[in-house]
Amino acid sequence: MSEPEMRPKAEKLDAADELAGMRAQFVLDDTVYLDGNSLGALPRSVPGRVEDVVRRQWGSLRIRSWDESGWWTAPERIGDRIAPLVGAAPGQIVVGDSTSVNVFKAVVGAVRLAGGGSEGPGDGEGHAGRPGPGGRDEVLVDATTFPTDGYIAASAARLTGCTLRPVTPDEVPGALSERTAAVLLNHVDYRTGRLHDLPSLAASIHAAGAISIWDLCHSAGALPVGLDEHGVDLAVGCTYKYLNGGPGSPAYLYVREAHQPRFDSPLPGWNSHADPFGMTPDYTPAPGALRGRVGTPDILSMLALEAALEVWDDVSIDAVRTKSLALTDFFLECVESYVPGGEVESLTPSPHTERGSQVALRCADAGNVMRRLIDRGVIGDFREPDVLRFGFTPLYVGFGDVERAARVLGEMF
Amino acid sequence: MSEPEMRPKAEKLDAADELAGMRAQFVLDDTVYLDGNSLGALPRSVPGRVEDVVRRQWGSLRIRSWDESGWWTAPERIGDRIAPLVGAAPGQIVVGDSTSVNVFKAVVGAVRLAGGGSEGPGDGEGHAGRPGPGGRDEVLVDATTFPTDGYIAASAARLTGCTLRPVTPDEVPGALSERTAAVLLNHVDYRTGRLHDLPSLAASIHAAGAISIWDLCHSAGALPVGLDEHGVDLAVGCTYKYLNGGPGSPAYLYVREAHQPRFDSPLPGWNSHADPFGMTPDYTPAPGALRGRVGTPDILSMLALEAALEVWDDVSIDAVRTKSLALTDFFLECVESYVPGGEVESLTPSPHTERGSQVALRCADAGNVMRRLIDRGVIGDFREPDVLRFGFTPLYVGFGDVERAARVLGEMF
Repeated sequence: MSEPEMRPKAEKLDAADELAGMRAQFVLDDTVYLDGNSLGALPRSVPGRVEDVVRRQWGSLRIRSWDESGWWTAPERIGDRIAPLVGAAPGQIVVGDSTSVNVFKAVVGAVRLAGGGSEGPGDGEGHAGRPGPGGRDEVLVDATTFPTDGYIAASAARLTGCTLRPVTPDEVPGALSERTAAVLLNHVDYRTGRLHDLPSLAASIHAAGAISIWDLCHSAGALPVGLDEHGVDLAVGCTYKYLNGGPGSPAYLYVREAHQPRFDSPLPGWNSHADPFGMTPDYTPAPGALRGRVGTPDILSMLALEAALEVWDDVSIDAVRTKSLALTDFFLECVESYVPGGEVESLTPSPHTERGSQVALRCADAGNVMRRLIDRGVIGDFREPDVLRFGFTPLYVGFGDVERAARVLGEMF
Repeated sequence: MSEPEMRPKAEKLDAADELAGMRAQFVLDDTVYLDGNSLGALPRSVPGRVEDVVRRQWGSLRIRSWDESGWWTAPERIGDRIAPLVGAAPGQIVVGDSTSVNVFKAVVGAVRLAGGGSEGPGDGEGHAGRPGPGGRDEVLVDATTFPTDGYIAASAARLTGCTLRPVTPDEVPGALSERTAAVLLNHVDYRTGRLHDLPSLAASIHAAGAISIWDLCHSAGALPVGLDEHGVDLAVGCTYKYLNGGPGSPAYLYVREAHQPRFDSPLPGWNSHADPFGMTPDYTPAPGALRGRVGTPDILSMLALEAALEVWDDVSIDAVRTKSLALTDFFLECVESYVPGGEVESLTPSPHTERGSQVALRCADAGNVMRRLIDRGVIGDFREPDVLRFGFTPLYVGFGDVERAARVLGEMF
């Protein structure tokens, strides 16, 4: 192998890494943690904050904290903190619920924005209407999507009287028609790490008069998204991967400002009411992003996320992207050096324009290989049927980690 | 007033209180906290547990905790911990999402269980069907409900092609017909504290061939519910009131065992799949209560709740009910003694069979009166337009607290 070459190269890259200092803001150990695309590492800012939330805000102030500790406004305040990371102006993102629940809000909301489905005027007081001739009654969904998006999109289609049509992202432009109400796509594929062409796809969908919904789970915090710039209509994402919010931390929903007045959520809980404490029997939606809220926010998880997001205060997402590509480039180079030919095959595209922040390697007996890697202190994960997945979080993964991971992988064969 | 009479009576009642020792398990101060029906006090078991979850489970074990720390199975494990408090055998409750989201699952699920609405065979692949003649196309909802239940029920009705009909709980028996698909009721009214007759109403609804859904937010942890015994079909509830789970802690969904095979959730996220890590594009629901799960559970909030529920280990819900009624009886007696006649009027029914664990007093200028009470260390809350609300959590409220609260209230006039 070529350890004598790769090791010094890693050291040189680490020495030149502008983000190297960020690692000190996380709790890490002597393992190589390449599973931040599943669960981000613990930011040092979190434990103290959570203790304060539990002991002082809940334990001492109790109910007063809804106002005095800013609990009530946390969903939109934390949304505004995520906004610059995904290229959104303030007032368009609310945090809360799981990604799955937000996919549901987004797909039903999109069908309604498109004037599609079989819901007609008078809904809520009587039966749903029928779609008119030529109505928009089709929802396109990424056929290779993370499963929950597909399951939830199917439910949303069923409830709005639409047909669900799975297509690959490449097939979207050809599949768009006057029947298309909404298109649900992943920015980065969870399995292969492939980055899809959001600007071009969003433009095609827009030109077809349909609504585009983007799942940012595997891109937010790893690369620039540009929601506002590229005319994205709706987006959702989790916060426990590259945003390091903690296990099952709340997800978020982006509703483009221009769509907010007509955004009609299928989950109009009291938190999205224009006057929640009026406690009126009639529902009047709040203005702006707030209408994406539903019920009482889970404050402990939410405020842990808020603390976790503070690590981004002085970080540019462009610098993160630059390092991310350097990390995955170097990993592929090291794999080529260390792993005997033919043992693994990269499923992740080579061109930078098509690569997220992970590398997926196809490998025989991948489940066992990953178990052995983990025993050796290299933490990635295994995805059925034969995929080794390695996520590279630029805030805390260094080039020395990358070299070690590839070297240990090479020793598996 | 009659302080010389009521004070010794309070002392006597406190001395005889079998649950008096439970107070030491909560973090309290020298205020009288009568807002546990909004946010329960902090159990002493919680801060240390949360710290362990953050620092060790997340910080050190990271992704391994999904298995090793029992994160993955938390929703059903914690559900089984709530089960005995609401009279349910194990395997019927899952914890997760907000109450509003669970109301949505329950109402759509109920319409489907009843064979109602305008969803027909072939849904998911095409347009929703029409209800047949005589089909069940009506959802009854408590007209005096906490608003979110009504808003969400309206959305569920709209999406399933049903009509929503608000009725008071008393009107339910007369309103039931062959058109009724589902009935959503509160066990205890959030405003007046009135306890509705669950056994009788559930039986009427069952006899009409409809599905009953009960919101237990204001009863679970305060009085016996008897879900299994009384043939309740579906139930939801929050965990941050009498269960002390913390601000916005996750809610729960009960699906009666007999209904589970046909329970068809409108939020079929990957966590409710029979084989979640199979990551298959087709959805196959998990057996049992698990099909009420949706997305990745919010672990910090969820495990704080689990710790909070430990205080119930040696407590019988019947003892809680006995003390709860003694507390509200004594409060009404003290109010009668201390508050000048005509200044307040109880909205809470006198008969024990119709009373939850709170007392609501109508009062002129109630918002200001509550602010002054809080300044004097008596914490209740105000509900529009003219209601003072006092919640009595038997685990940590004593009779001396009750006497003091009524005495200070008397001094407001």
